[in-house]
Amino acid sequence: MTTGKWREAVEGKKWTEVSDLVEEMAGSEVLIRGRVHTYRPQSSKVFVILRQSGCTVQCVAEQSNVGVNMIKYLKQLSYESFVDVIGVVVVPKDPVKGTTQKVEIQVRKVYYVNRALERLPLGVEDAARSEADIEKSLETGTPAVRVNQDTRLNNRVVDIRTPANQAIVSIGCQFENFFRGNLLSMGFVSIHTPKLLAGSSEGGYAVFRLDYKGQPACLADWPQLHKQMAICGDLRHVFVVGPVFRAEDSFTHRHLCEFVGLDAEMEIYKDYSEIMDLVDELFVFMFTELNEKCKKELEAVGKQYPFEPLKVNPICSIKKGFCSRYQTYRTGVEVDPLGDLNTESERKLGQLVLEKYKTEFYILHRFPTAVRPFYTMPCADNPLYSNSFDVFIRCEEIMSGGQRVHVPEVMEKRARECGIDVKTISTYIDSFKYGAPPHGGFRVGLERVVMLFCALNNIRKTSLFPRDPQRLSP
Amino acid sequence: MTTGKWREAVEGKKWTEVSDLVEEMAGSEVLIRGRVHTYRPQSSKVFVILRQSGCTVQCVAEQSNVGVNMIKYLKQLSYESFVDVIGVVVVPKDPVKGTTQKVEIQVRKVYYVNRALERLPLGVEDAARSEADIEKSLETGTPAVRVNQDTRLNNRVVDIRTPANQAIVSIGCQFENFFRGNLLSMGFVSIHTPKLLAGSSEGGYAVFRLDYKGQPACLADWPQLHKQMAICGDLRHVFVVGPVFRAEDSFTHRHLCEFVGLDAEMEIYKDYSEIMDLVDELFVFMFTELNEKCKKELEAVGKQYPFEPLKVNPICSIKKGFCSRYQTYRTGVEVDPLGDLNTESERKLGQLVLEKYKTEFYILHRFPTAVRPFYTMPCADNPLYSNSFDVFIRCEEIMSGGQRVHVPEVMEKRARECGIDVKTISTYIDSFKYGAPPHGGFRVGLERVVMLFCALNNIRKTSLFPRDPQRLSP
Repeated sequence: MTTGKWREAVEGKKWTEVSDLVEEMAGSEVLIRGRVHTYRPQSSKVFVILRQSGCTVQCVAEQSNVGVNMIKYLKQLSYESFVDVIGVVVVPKDPVKGTTQKVEIQVRKVYYVNRALERLPLGVEDAARSEADIEKSLETGTPAVRVNQDTRLNNRVVDIRTPANQAIVSIGCQFENFFRGNLLSMGFVSIHTPKLLAGSSEGGYAVFRLDYKGQPACLADWPQLHKQMAICGDLRHVFVVGPVFRAEDSFTHRHLCEFVGLDAEMEIYKDYSEIMDLVDELFVFMFTELNEKCKKELEAVGKQYPFEPLKVNPICSIKKGFCSRYQTYRTGVEVDPLGDLNTESERKLGQLVLEKYKTEFYILHRFPTAVRPFYTMPCADNPLYSNSFDVFIRCEEIMSGGQRVHVPEVMEKRARECGIDVKTISTYIDSFKYGAPPHGGFRVGLERVVMLFCALNNIRKTSLFPRDPQRLSP
Repeated sequence: MTTGKWREAVEGKKWTEVSDLVEEMAGSEVLIRGRVHTYRPQSSKVFVILRQSGCTVQCVAEQSNVGVNMIKYLKQLSYESFVDVIGVVVVPKDPVKGTTQKVEIQVRKVYYVNRALERLPLGVEDAARSEADIEKSLETGTPAVRVNQDTRLNNRVVDIRTPANQAIVSIGCQFENFFRGNLLSMGFVSIHTPKLLAGSSEGGYAVFRLDYKGQPACLADWPQLHKQMAICGDLRHVFVVGPVFRAEDSFTHRHLCEFVGLDAEMEIYKDYSEIMDLVDELFVFMFTELNEKCKKELEAVGKQYPFEPLKVNPICSIKKGFCSRYQTYRTGVEVDPLGDLNTESERKLGQLVLEKYKTEFYILHRFPTAVRPFYTMPCADNPLYSNSFDVFIRCEEIMSGGQRVHVPEVMEKRARECGIDVKTISTYIDSFKYGAPPHGGFRVGLERVVMLFCALNNIRKTSLFPRDPQRLSP
């Protein structure tokens, strides 16, 4: 790092976290490191707001304490620079406005750790402004800056510093932890499946192709085949968390070309309701946990992007939350009985479920076989329908699942019916010839579920470094 | 699933896990599902060993109980098929040999769930045989089958069913869990970084190239740049678990073209010993935990591939385990002071450390700058050396780490010295111009650490579906 004076000054001292600065520490000298969030110079004083992740504290440098040279030095600080501050904790008479910490630091010394450019591509305060505050500023005649999405994403290292974005990253991390932790406690094993596949995948999506040492290869558009092969390998209940690649030209608010897939697969004993029961219990629990344990983070998101917490009704969801497609007609949504749902029907159905069951989370099952992949098990009583389901929150699909065909002859027949050359999937089909249990599973996209959980309007807000048909950097 | 008679027979019944079959259940009727591990027909009896994951139980069908047709039916079972067995738990007079469960099942009914082919590409018992048992069989004159690695990997769904392989998957899962759990408890955040990168990476490895909607792209050979950008985005301590891609033509026992990287990055305050302290504490803890909590799994691996548990000496490792390269010379390994270690020196050094400190886990630091990537921070006292380290277990490297350059000017200088066109990494360098804290991190490959922890001779044994220069399937 830096050397000389700084090294001498900090030697033997401990750093204090900004979040730990409380009134009980009044009078003690502390060493803190943080960013220059903002500063306000006066003639013989400089007020610096120091930020560390989501926490801020006001530091006051007075000429009588630090000397005239230090005041000059502080008047040339640049925003977002890292500095080390040595100072004394004091409790101000009038509480400081706009900082997270109530105490103030009387500055003794300040050292630059890393100096940021004078002009940044966007300001953190600008990036953190809510739409409501921008609207309000218009009335005052001095309109506040509105940072557009491309500027944010082009300069994600600055954009990600806003309280809402810090919280979104944390919510995604928590969601994944709850998913993993709960499945592990149910006896699932975490596995990793290869993303590099020979030939072209049969998942039904456009894939990214590449040359693998002279062989044609593609990037996995789901770990579907390999998680099923893990079940054939006696692993019984598995999950995979990892990137999923889609070369689709989808320019929507909810599609990415690379995202994080949470995939599970399990043996089943009687029928696919075992999977839906698990999904129901797991997700109701996870959403409830998130609402409880991420209160601070949800508040931070809501401050910039106001939203209502997701309504999850556990009892209703567990006992009656499954809507078969047949029920759908009765509840008033008209859809093609052998076709897929469109966005409009999804929305209408979601409203009906919310009114009747007071939940924005629900499962729709028994989809027409024609709209599901070839490996979906047809219903025993009517092969035009399948043992499959989708999960919705806030009227949008977050998850698909279902029972898979485990009988090689049935799979070959289904592949042919779907126009797939059986030869190209022979390794996959062979897996089932060596003995396979009935099984099924489900998949959810991390960025999409976090987007809908927080009612955000764009999936690019929940991906740290999003990839879409037009964006491959940073 | 199947219908008719089977459905009637199992309706309303609960399945019992093979692992739950104990003497206390004697006399009760149970319904179990499992694979036909082996069977032995006699005139009016059939003995079936039923396997469920790692557990086995003997089922005895007697003509007097099940009738002549069922006996005929059972004499045509095929190995590895899934069957449902209804029977009564009994405690046999003479304990059953070779099964994990001590009780026996008196069969009432058996139903096929899924029939495996008569001839499998390899037998699970053959795949599970230790080298010692094969050697022993040679003496008897009827040599046992030795399954070669390609047969195993080509038919991984069968190979993975052996007790050793089931255990290896579980150890990998546990290692990842300990890694995640411990870092989360230290305040790290789990993030995901994009695997699709614009242009070609600067990680120094051969990369897989592809076309991304008309733009040249490659697969990330480490999440290095993005995890550093996350630190510049105020996330402070992050880790990434995900696939890492290398197009290297490395035909060795320890290289793969796709593997699981465990990557961490953190702010540092004084120097890079903060990272080494964390690595030391984390890994000594994890290895100790694995040795304690995966006893059954380690035993299963050792049965087929005998090995000595990894010697980890916590006190020694924490207090004195760091060996600087300078110490190396004194301990008798001759190496080029500005060059890298070769395999021979690594081995010799490992032996010396084991003798002196009684640990097979140690950290070597202060590598010559010339053998580390351009983003490695040179030592303040001698820029020919760098603030970097490697971690070794059983004389092989499992991890690299170090402090990164966070000062844009130094980074540009280092890039130029390493022959990198600064323009191609401008986004990366810009990240540090917007204010960056001193930071560093480390990376470890999951498959390699599990391989060395279990003293296995090939990394393909610890990857579920390995990818190497010649293997892209299954």
